[in-house]
Amino acid sequence: MKVGIVGGTGDIGEGIAMRLSSRHDVIIGSREEEKAAQSSACCLDTLTKRGLPCSCQGHTNQEAVDRSDVIILAIPFKHVEPTLATLKGLSGKIVISPVNPMEKREYFMFVPPPEGSAAMMIRRLIPADARLCTAFNTVAANKWRALDEELDLAIPVCGDDPDAKAVVMELINSVPRVRAYNAGPLAASCMVECLTPLLLNIARFNKMRDVGIQFK
Amino acid sequence: MKVGIVGGTGDIGEGIAMRLSSRHDVIIGSREEEKAAQSSACCLDTLTKRGLPCSCQGHTNQEAVDRSDVIILAIPFKHVEPTLATLKGLSGKIVISPVNPMEKREYFMFVPPPEGSAAMMIRRLIPADARLCTAFNTVAANKWRALDEELDLAIPVCGDDPDAKAVVMELINSVPRVRAYNAGPLAASCMVECLTPLLLNIARFNKMRDVGIQFK
Repeated sequence: MKVGIVGGTGDIGEGIAMRLSSRHDVIIGSREEEKAAQSSACCLDTLTKRGLPCSCQGHTNQEAVDRSDVIILAIPFKHVEPTLATLKGLSGKIVISPVNPMEKREYFMFVPPPEGSAAMMIRRLIPADARLCTAFNTVAANKWRALDEELDLAIPVCGDDPDAKAVVMELINSVPRVRAYNAGPLAASCMVECLTPLLLNIARFNKMRDVGIQFK
Repeated sequence: MKVGIVGGTGDIGEGIAMRLSSRHDVIIGSREEEKAAQSSACCLDTLTKRGLPCSCQGHTNQEAVDRSDVIILAIPFKHVEPTLATLKGLSGKIVISPVNPMEKREYFMFVPPPEGSAAMMIRRLIPADARLCTAFNTVAANKWRALDEELDLAIPVCGDDPDAKAVVMELINSVPRVRAYNAGPLAASCMVECLTPLLLNIARFNKMRDVGIQFK
């Protein structure tokens, strides 16, 4: 699978790139191509040292879109609208939103846009035939980058296009011990996006680190 | 601990009563005292057959409040306001809201009241010195009633009174293999209440039953 990561030099993007690039062709995108090249070199180095294969390139965000079948929008909520305004060519592609609209107070709070979730806002901002799914929301960046640690995580996936959702779930399930769960239509995304501030609160108030979720 | 369960004859209330009454004094409350007595007899029978101790009584909701130190509001969201309007004596007591405001469409959707969560609405409806916590939201009733099954579950707890929260967490942790997690202040309850429709969606769309949550 050709996977482009818009904002791939951020914490979450890097973590996802490291776990996916030994199994898929990953294109790390960035506003600054040089930063993307550095991230890509770091990813290649990290995987090679472990004797793992690695297919990873660094490019601009636009090239990450153009060269990929699946595009992950690994950007903070506040950058979503301006970033999407600069990108073309999402039409017909599978687009993944791992975006969580939240604020840090004395605790983390889910603060959705008027559409009810980041996913439903993104739905309005991208072409109608872009195949949008919500996934990878609960990725604790440090855990994903720590390649020597097993993940043992559940990832809920929302979306209205069953074929696109199946591809996204297959992509997730290609990572050992990570399991994708169908969490319903795109309109149900708010309940998935809510998990991230919840997990950050659980970490904060119970002196834990990089908390993930499992369904039992 | 003396634990009163308002709405204790419902699915969730019965499940909680069965797990708690071998360790605490449980008063099952109901609008109809006779139903409460039946539930209590059923609970006693179920536990006795397994050779477990059981302290369980059935009374009215008001008596469940009057006779208890900790009161669990095991009622559906739509019954919260009318039920609380009939109850007195919550002042100074620890009150637990396991209430999840949600609707069933083709999927389950979190639909909070204007206050942002059931807990924040309840805060407005009960005396200011009632010590309110959010907990037990993600109890899958069937799992809690199936006493021969180990639970292996996480239960997030929100609240603004540290001592009350500690008591609620101790109550939860008294159930083997169930673990309480501090999920922050009462205002963070929406992210806990959101879990229940999420878990119901996970069950529905992945052909699972009685799904619970674990933090990893």
